[in-house]
Amino acid sequence: MNILVTLNSNYIKPLKVMLWSLFFNNRGRDFHVYLVHSSLTAQELDDLRQYINANGHEFFAIKIPGGYFAGAPVVKHYSQEMYYRLLAHRFLPEDLERVLYLDPDILVINPVNALYEMDLEGYLYAASYHKRALVKGINMIRLKAYEMEEYFNSGVLLMNLSLHRKKIREEEIFAYLEKNRNRLILPDQDLLNALYSKEIKKVDEVIYNYDTRFYHYYRIQSGGRVNMDYIMDNTVILHFCGKKKPWQEQYTGEFHSLYKHYERLALGKKVLDSAKAGVGS
Amino acid sequence: MNILVTLNSNYIKPLKVMLWSLFFNNRGRDFHVYLVHSSLTAQELDDLRQYINANGHEFFAIKIPGGYFAGAPVVKHYSQEMYYRLLAHRFLPEDLERVLYLDPDILVINPVNALYEMDLEGYLYAASYHKRALVKGINMIRLKAYEMEEYFNSGVLLMNLSLHRKKIREEEIFAYLEKNRNRLILPDQDLLNALYSKEIKKVDEVIYNYDTRFYHYYRIQSGGRVNMDYIMDNTVILHFCGKKKPWQEQYTGEFHSLYKHYERLALGKKVLDSAKAGVGS
Repeated sequence: MNILVTLNSNYIKPLKVMLWSLFFNNRGRDFHVYLVHSSLTAQELDDLRQYINANGHEFFAIKIPGGYFAGAPVVKHYSQEMYYRLLAHRFLPEDLERVLYLDPDILVINPVNALYEMDLEGYLYAASYHKRALVKGINMIRLKAYEMEEYFNSGVLLMNLSLHRKKIREEEIFAYLEKNRNRLILPDQDLLNALYSKEIKKVDEVIYNYDTRFYHYYRIQSGGRVNMDYIMDNTVILHFCGKKKPWQEQYTGEFHSLYKHYERLALGKKVLDSAKAGVGS
Repeated sequence: MNILVTLNSNYIKPLKVMLWSLFFNNRGRDFHVYLVHSSLTAQELDDLRQYINANGHEFFAIKIPGGYFAGAPVVKHYSQEMYYRLLAHRFLPEDLERVLYLDPDILVINPVNALYEMDLEGYLYAASYHKRALVKGINMIRLKAYEMEEYFNSGVLLMNLSLHRKKIREEEIFAYLEKNRNRLILPDQDLLNALYSKEIKKVDEVIYNYDTRFYHYYRIQSGGRVNMDYIMDNTVILHFCGKKKPWQEQYTGEFHSLYKHYERLALGKKVLDSAKAGVGS
C-alpha cells in the first residue's frame, strides 16, 4: 500500500508513532511510504529511512526545490507545503494509481486495507467529514458560496491519482486561493471542500477519521453504540485533531494513555534502573 | 518469577489481560503462575493453562476443598477466598521462597523484576500504601486502635513465604476477624494492615500500585512530575481500584483506552470485515 506524508522537522516524532501504529496493526502488509518535503535534512531523511526499513517497509523521499511555488498565493502563515498534498500527483511516480495520505497526528489502530482497496471509480478522493464540526457551523457559513453540503476533513485522504492527473488543475487551485485568501481559515482543507466536495467519496468518520476530541459526542450521538469497545474493534484511524496534541505536555483526553503507549513502542523508552525498587521502610 | 492469583470465574477475562500485560512487558522472563481457587471448573482451568502455556509460561492450579475454612469467621459478604491470599504459604509448594500476588484488575506496563528481586530480609511483605486513601481518612479512623501509621493496599503484595511460614498464625487471623467483624470494610486488607503493617516494606505507590482513579491527584501532588510520560516510563503496575472497572460498560478514565488496547491484544478482537469500508457517497 502506498502512504503519503508531507511534513517538516517538527513532526518527525509524531510521524514515527503514526507509522509504527500503521505497521503494527497491519502486520503482513507491505507499505511504500512517500514523503514530500522541502526542508528535512539528509540526516533526518536517513533516520526516517532506517526506521521504516527496519520495520520492513520502503521509504521514498521527494524533495521539492525551494521557490517551486514562488508564484503561488501565500495565505496567512501557511507555507507552500500545503500544495504538496493538493498537487501530490505532480510529485509522485507516474505509475502510482492511488495513495493514502495521512496526517502525522494520527494513530492507526486497525487494518487499513478495506479503505485502501475501496472502489474509487469516478471519485477524486475518499474522505470523511466531521459532523461535529458541521454542528459548530462556522465552516459551512464561511464557505456557503460554494454550496457545499459537507465539510470533509483533509487529514485522511485516499487519492485517486490517475484521475487527479486528468482533472486537478493548478491554475484553478491558485485562482481559488487568490480570490478567497482573506476568508480562509484552513486554506488547504477549505479549498479541498470548495472545489472538490462533490467528487469526494464519503467514508464513515467513526471508522476512518475519528476525532479524538469528541468521544462523548460520538458515544451519545450513537445511542451508546460507539463506546470504547466499538472503537477498539472497528475504528481504523484515530485523529488527534485540534491545537492540543497528545505529545505535548498539557494534553489530556480519553486516548492520551493509548497514544503514549504507542509512542513508547515506536520511539523506545528510557532504560529502567533498579534504583527505583524500594523507598525503604 | 512466581506469581500468585486467587479468583473466581467472574475474573478470568481480567486475569488474562493482566497476565498478558505482565508477559508482554517482561519479555525474556519466565513466570510460574499459581492460582489458588475453590470454584473454577476443569474447563476454565484447562483454558487458563493453555493460555499461559501458549505465552511460554507455567501454570499451577491449587484447589482448596469446600469447607476447608468452615470454622473460620465469615465477615459480611466476603467469602472464604480472602484466606487464600492471607494464608497462601499454606497452599503453595514448600520450597517457594517468594511470590508476587497480583489482583486481576491490574495492568503491568513495565518490568517487575526490580520489585520481585528486592531485599525482603526481616519483612513479611513489600507493598505500597495509598496516600490518597489516607487523605480521605476513613481507613485510619476505623483502624486507629491498631496504631497503624500507613494503610497498605493489598492488591500488589510481594510475599516473603519463608518468613510467612514462621510468623503468620491462622489463630491470630481468625481472632482478629472475629473480634472486628462489624467494623471491617475491606476485611482482608484491614487485617493485613492491622496485624502486619510494621512488617511490610514500603514501595512507591506511583511505581508499584498506581491507583488509576487519581491521575490528577498524583500529577498535582508531584508538582507535575508524575505526568503520562512519567507513568509510561516508570510505573510498573496500574491498579484499577474501586467499584468501576475498565471492562465494564460505563467506565471512563485516563487509562480506559490503554486497558481496552491490552484487552484486545490479550483476548483477540472481532475479525474486521470489508463491509464497513464505505457508506456510499
